[in-house]
Amino acid sequence: MINRIKISELGQHIGEEVSIAGWVDVRRDHGKLIFIDLRDASSKVQMVVLPAHEGAVETAQKLRPEWVIRVTGAVNKRPDKMIKEGQENGDVEIEVKEIEILAEAKELPFDKDSELNFDTYLDYLPLTLRREKARAIFRVQAQILKSFREFLTGEGFVEFQAPKLIGDDAEGGANSFDVEYFGHTAHLAQSPQLYKQIMVGIFERVFAAGNVYRAEKHSTTRHLNEYTSLDIEIGFITDHTDVVKMEMRFLAKIMEDLKANCAKEFALFDADIPNVPLEVPMMKLRAAQQVIKEEFGEDCSSEPDLEPQHERWLCEYSKKKFDSDFIFISHFPITKRPFYTMEDQTDPGYAMGGDLLFRGVEITTLAQRIHDYDMLVASMEKKGLNPEKFSYYLQAFKYGMPPHGGLGLGLERLTAKLLGIENVKEATLFPRDLNRIDNLLSK
Amino acid sequence: MINRIKISELGQHIGEEVSIAGWVDVRRDHGKLIFIDLRDASSKVQMVVLPAHEGAVETAQKLRPEWVIRVTGAVNKRPDKMIKEGQENGDVEIEVKEIEILAEAKELPFDKDSELNFDTYLDYLPLTLRREKARAIFRVQAQILKSFREFLTGEGFVEFQAPKLIGDDAEGGANSFDVEYFGHTAHLAQSPQLYKQIMVGIFERVFAAGNVYRAEKHSTTRHLNEYTSLDIEIGFITDHTDVVKMEMRFLAKIMEDLKANCAKEFALFDADIPNVPLEVPMMKLRAAQQVIKEEFGEDCSSEPDLEPQHERWLCEYSKKKFDSDFIFISHFPITKRPFYTMEDQTDPGYAMGGDLLFRGVEITTLAQRIHDYDMLVASMEKKGLNPEKFSYYLQAFKYGMPPHGGLGLGLERLTAKLLGIENVKEATLFPRDLNRIDNLLSK
Repeated sequence: MINRIKISELGQHIGEEVSIAGWVDVRRDHGKLIFIDLRDASSKVQMVVLPAHEGAVETAQKLRPEWVIRVTGAVNKRPDKMIKEGQENGDVEIEVKEIEILAEAKELPFDKDSELNFDTYLDYLPLTLRREKARAIFRVQAQILKSFREFLTGEGFVEFQAPKLIGDDAEGGANSFDVEYFGHTAHLAQSPQLYKQIMVGIFERVFAAGNVYRAEKHSTTRHLNEYTSLDIEIGFITDHTDVVKMEMRFLAKIMEDLKANCAKEFALFDADIPNVPLEVPMMKLRAAQQVIKEEFGEDCSSEPDLEPQHERWLCEYSKKKFDSDFIFISHFPITKRPFYTMEDQTDPGYAMGGDLLFRGVEITTLAQRIHDYDMLVASMEKKGLNPEKFSYYLQAFKYGMPPHGGLGLGLERLTAKLLGIENVKEATLFPRDLNRIDNLLSK
Repeated sequence: MINRIKISELGQHIGEEVSIAGWVDVRRDHGKLIFIDLRDASSKVQMVVLPAHEGAVETAQKLRPEWVIRVTGAVNKRPDKMIKEGQENGDVEIEVKEIEILAEAKELPFDKDSELNFDTYLDYLPLTLRREKARAIFRVQAQILKSFREFLTGEGFVEFQAPKLIGDDAEGGANSFDVEYFGHTAHLAQSPQLYKQIMVGIFERVFAAGNVYRAEKHSTTRHLNEYTSLDIEIGFITDHTDVVKMEMRFLAKIMEDLKANCAKEFALFDADIPNVPLEVPMMKLRAAQQVIKEEFGEDCSSEPDLEPQHERWLCEYSKKKFDSDFIFISHFPITKRPFYTMEDQTDPGYAMGGDLLFRGVEITTLAQRIHDYDMLVASMEKKGLNPEKFSYYLQAFKYGMPPHGGLGLGLERLTAKLLGIENVKEATLFPRDLNRIDNLLSK
């Protein structure tokens, strides 16, 4: 719209007449004065309609929350004693001259800021996402994604679009969704894993950020059936620690950018942006289990994996001992890792990779991959997979593949952990689960 | 890898001993000399193995195309008369001291640079994508995406992740894929349309770049069943021409960045990067049909849409008359446009939007949308759609939505048109069609 200015920029227009537009947040009538809080995507401001502006008064009297209006008015500086400290635009007030109604709104189903049951919150996302905290979550998410891509592009990575429609349930789980594909059964990709390895043969360093699908029949605060995976794969590595180093570097960039651009959003959640140690504490699984035994008294030293409680303990330990919100646990038993994972030749039976834990939870699985064709085929056979089904993928290895490794990071889980949000679905824009696609299924 | 330098940077290391790594492109034996072209993701260089370096000779004799090696050698400047002009690293040669084999490759199924039948090309993508032209296509594609996002972020747009798993085939076509979802039938999204409109209510200006799905049973050079859609939606517009202007601005940014960063890739395809007019020629459908009649002699003036030949003619006309590779045709009959399209109140029966044509083909559909709840419900009913099925989406309008509009742009189609590639599948990394998911289905 011509000449419309953002509400966040009002401070630069004190004494001027401006045109702004947005949603009515609240209307309050005080005798002959009508106060309206107007919200746009950038900020919020208090406006006053004085009796002198009769046309504006008439329109203002009709306004209800969420009506969309355009306003012409004067930007007045509040007297010093009326300044609302710490409030957005607390030092200005708009004196309304004209109001144009752009769209009306029906009666809201609940009070704008009322506490809602989480299911109701999700049923009304087109409305509830307009809340300040909800908007903050997805601004932070957009910033994470932007920083991730900018950093990697600067490091010579090439972004690619991984297909989500795949022919075979390549990773061998029961967790894939079936798609009816012209008389065939196709599947939704659980990760871009096989494609990003193929892409190492093309561009050496690649990343992809896109949706992945898990047909898990769990409805917990940790599970999503559709989420955004940030995936990277790096060729010509020495070992998996090169991948760990790259991850710490991009995480450091993300946190630096969040500090610069999202301080307001973090303040709303009373959340701290972590410092990222470039030298993250690293520990093999067996050593980590020893720590758990010594420090927390539980003997899990023959387990092949970490339980959620173990992850919390190790993070607690890392914080106390190394002052780090992160800790990397490597060398899980190779039998429990996917077929493409490289075994440590110097520590047989264990994987060249592991999990990055952050604030009590695993946020990344990372590993060096097998790059030798014959070794890869043997690994598939050992896992009971049929190499013929992987003939397309295997070409990448048949025709020369450098040592490489990579990682996957769930965008929604990272967002949730950073902001201290308990349920990952709250950090997912339109979450899909066992009982929900938008407001469908459960009904 | 420690100390490895990129082949593209060799020119800065003349006279030094360096470590490089990559794929063997070709090996040529000339008497006692062995020449090897080595390729990494950045460039290519000729290396020579002299008889004096016995260990290197022994290893070099084994090398075959696509073997992955690491080389230590001296960067020598070629004598002036030996400089290969116009060739990458044509002025340097590596004198090999040591070779380490990182991975072997099997015998290739065809000669590296042989012309291939397109189906064979696709069957062997993990190998054929390593060709120079293939890599150029996807570097250009990555740059387009990067420029698109950077420009929009700078204009205050917020990126969001649109769900691809949707509950209902919302846009009412038969062209959606069915997904088995925990005993329900879900669908793959044909576009992020409904979600991006919802998001206008949250952030005013949004964009999404992700996969969309069309279950079209066509196998042509124009159709894809999975492609990447660049989508934007803008709130508080005056009319659809605000969206056209935004598109021309981001296209201008894309072309500027391609000129700066991808000149080499365009040269490979002998393709020109177009100039983008900020004031694109605009014409209503009926006027465009009049032009077709007068200039090309075909009377299509009562048709509701443009045929491919009409699009080619209009582009030819635009180039000749306005020196523009682009032309925007608006005001198609509203009956042929989706239910959410705004009708022009001053030109009843016609849509406030249309198609952007580029070099003979439509690359964007763009429109102002209906923002009034009651008008939107009426439009659905007119199209025979049941508003109850859209109750989730309709909340955005029920609770106040500003005037808005947006567009969608197919990333692969744009890439193909820019590079002069006939078949859009060649500009799609792992194309899916009626008969193909990787090398599956057709077999």
